[in-house]
Amino acid sequence: MKALRFYGNRDVRVDDNVPEPVISKPTDVLIAPQWCGICGSDLHEFLGGPTFCPTHPHSLTADKIPVVLGHEFSGIVLAVGSEVSEIVVGDKVCVEATQRCEECANCRSGRTNCCVYGPAFYGLTGLGGGLAEKVVIPVSHVFKLPSDLPVAYGALVEPLSVAWHAVELSGFKPGMTALVLGSGPIGIATILCLQAMGAKTIIVSEPAVGRRKQAEEFDVDFVINPFEEDVVAKVKEILKGEGAERSYDCSGIQATFQASVAALAAGGIAMNIALWEKPTQYNPMDTLVRERVIMGSIGYTGRDFAAVIAAIADGRLKGFEKMITARIPMEDTVSVGYDGLINNKEKHIKILCTPFPELLK
Amino acid sequence: MKALRFYGNRDVRVDDNVPEPVISKPTDVLIAPQWCGICGSDLHEFLGGPTFCPTHPHSLTADKIPVVLGHEFSGIVLAVGSEVSEIVVGDKVCVEATQRCEECANCRSGRTNCCVYGPAFYGLTGLGGGLAEKVVIPVSHVFKLPSDLPVAYGALVEPLSVAWHAVELSGFKPGMTALVLGSGPIGIATILCLQAMGAKTIIVSEPAVGRRKQAEEFDVDFVINPFEEDVVAKVKEILKGEGAERSYDCSGIQATFQASVAALAAGGIAMNIALWEKPTQYNPMDTLVRERVIMGSIGYTGRDFAAVIAAIADGRLKGFEKMITARIPMEDTVSVGYDGLINNKEKHIKILCTPFPELLK
Ligand SMILES: [Zn+2]
Ligand SMILES: [Zn+2]
Ligand SMILES: [Zn+2]
Ligand SMILES: [Zn+2]
Repeated sequence: MKALRFYGNRDVRVDDNVPEPVISKPTDVLIAPQWCGICGSDLHEFLGGPTFCPTHPHSLTADKIPVVLGHEFSGIVLAVGSEVSEIVVGDKVCVEATQRCEECANCRSGRTNCCVYGPAFYGLTGLGGGLAEKVVIPVSHVFKLPSDLPVAYGALVEPLSVAWHAVELSGFKPGMTALVLGSGPIGIATILCLQAMGAKTIIVSEPAVGRRKQAEEFDVDFVINPFEEDVVAKVKEILKGEGAERSYDCSGIQATFQASVAALAAGGIAMNIALWEKPTQYNPMDTLVRERVIMGSIGYTGRDFAAVIAAIADGRLKGFEKMITARIPMEDTVSVGYDGLINNKEKHIKILCTPFPELLK
Repeated sequence: MKALRFYGNRDVRVDDNVPEPVISKPTDVLIAPQWCGICGSDLHEFLGGPTFCPTHPHSLTADKIPVVLGHEFSGIVLAVGSEVSEIVVGDKVCVEATQRCEECANCRSGRTNCCVYGPAFYGLTGLGGGLAEKVVIPVSHVFKLPSDLPVAYGALVEPLSVAWHAVELSGFKPGMTALVLGSGPIGIATILCLQAMGAKTIIVSEPAVGRRKQAEEFDVDFVINPFEEDVVAKVKEILKGEGAERSYDCSGIQATFQASVAALAAGGIAMNIALWEKPTQYNPMDTLVRERVIMGSIGYTGRDFAAVIAAIADGRLKGFEKMITARIPMEDTVSVGYDGLINNKEKHIKILCTPFPELLK
């Protein structure tokens, strides 16, 4: 079959002769991926990796480079194993991509995203992914989409789950105020989840003009240009007090980290969702004097997938379709997709790729 | 009356002619302080201050240098205002020292320790303190001690409340495991509170040999010398897993901060109780990958005083009397007390001073 595979740094290829996966366990589900988003971590892997993609057999998957890419995907069920009953052939589904051992203390306590052998994902660490004509996934990772939802939108469940997990882990409650630092793809997904969870006021800080415009299209309450305004002072002014109850750092640089803490009211929580490339400076007195909290969130669990799909189904999560800024054939993933996200990132949020070009018609 | 007052950097004097405080409001309580501990913040103020002691009229107290020192004290009630009924003359009491406005959003929400005009304390920011023959304190700050508790032990309620607040704020639950970094006075108070709250395992890391010995006297489970052992590896080995559920940084240096985070299991909380003098380096990936949490705690509220006194009364908090390593007359506060804590700190935990030398007999 045809699939997009990672071979090494700046070496990602469309292969025509990849062995077709088949159902081998009674809990397996065979899926034809239809749409797959390109993620920031795909770009990191391409430009600076391999980080996730294993150069030696991975402890969870036993797989290694070349591995099929694509961890944000939706598709149609082609076949199911003998013990699968809740998913049937023809279902529209998406895939909770976290690979884990199911046995370590973290897995057993439900923190599957913190598996001691992870982080690992279908589409990065082996055993297939969404940028292929077929993939086999255990039914515990397969989530049915609402029947009236276009399959393409199902590819957004994964990035929305990343944000949902972070917002929920931060103890966000209806009526709270939030500062979002950075309105790239994760920032936009965070905004949507905050709206779904009943945020009272959402303030976005974003230096890039194109991304500020995008944030405005998602109906946030205030958008700040941190190069022109003092973010902390502005947040306090808007909220008429000491600051926001929650902040979400979706950028991961010194300036956003410091604002994410300093812009908080007493007891506020600064949640980091960004992947960082180097350490930053931190003054513990900044958390101590107002008893602020710093947290980090990674990935998601099946609970987040279920919650996102339920919120889509009942209309709490909405507007997410605006995240899709382009649809391209799988063959163009690198030349058009990666290139667009690297060199024209203010224009794009999510680019969806498909292994089936006829879906673009 | 006689009182110890702060005039400026390295300028603390015993004055004989300080005006006697009198009851002026119906909610006032006139106390004769009997015992008062010397705190690390007193030493900071002496060596590097004034930081807390106001050089201009303070926004909460309108008081300024010279101010009476002593914020960790207990004493006997001499008189009460007309509206005071729960406290009577002759009661043994201690004082919850946090000054606050009672009107800001933080005060109104119960976070009186985060008052926007603070942090401020009796015995540092004016309106009298525990190192004086008399002090007037509003009844809302006055807590009755168990009648069978020696008054001197009541002076420990304040430092124990600092630790109690931090341990409670960290969401500590019976059966949890904890790492305490530094077994100075705050570290020891933290150990006692963790024991009172039902810790399963307490591990202490402390570089100073004298302080390691002290920690051992408080029945902790394991004491580590961080100069000889890798704290993080040792904690994981002792706990047979990924790390501790909670850590308490009672030192406030780069090494303790990093260990306080890295030694945590997934979802663990690193609580900082130390006052820091400069920023540190922080890698947000260290919280992200295991969804660890960083918090800071400052001071206490009246709830903590009530909880500590209740835990002393019913025997959950015990062994605290071993914190008292010397008792001295108020006149010797600087020459013996400060000197001992600065130059012989491995020998001391809490030095209690009294304005009434006859109590030393
Ligand atoms: Zn992703
Ligand atoms: Zn696991
Ligand atoms: Zn103190
Ligand atoms: Zn206040």
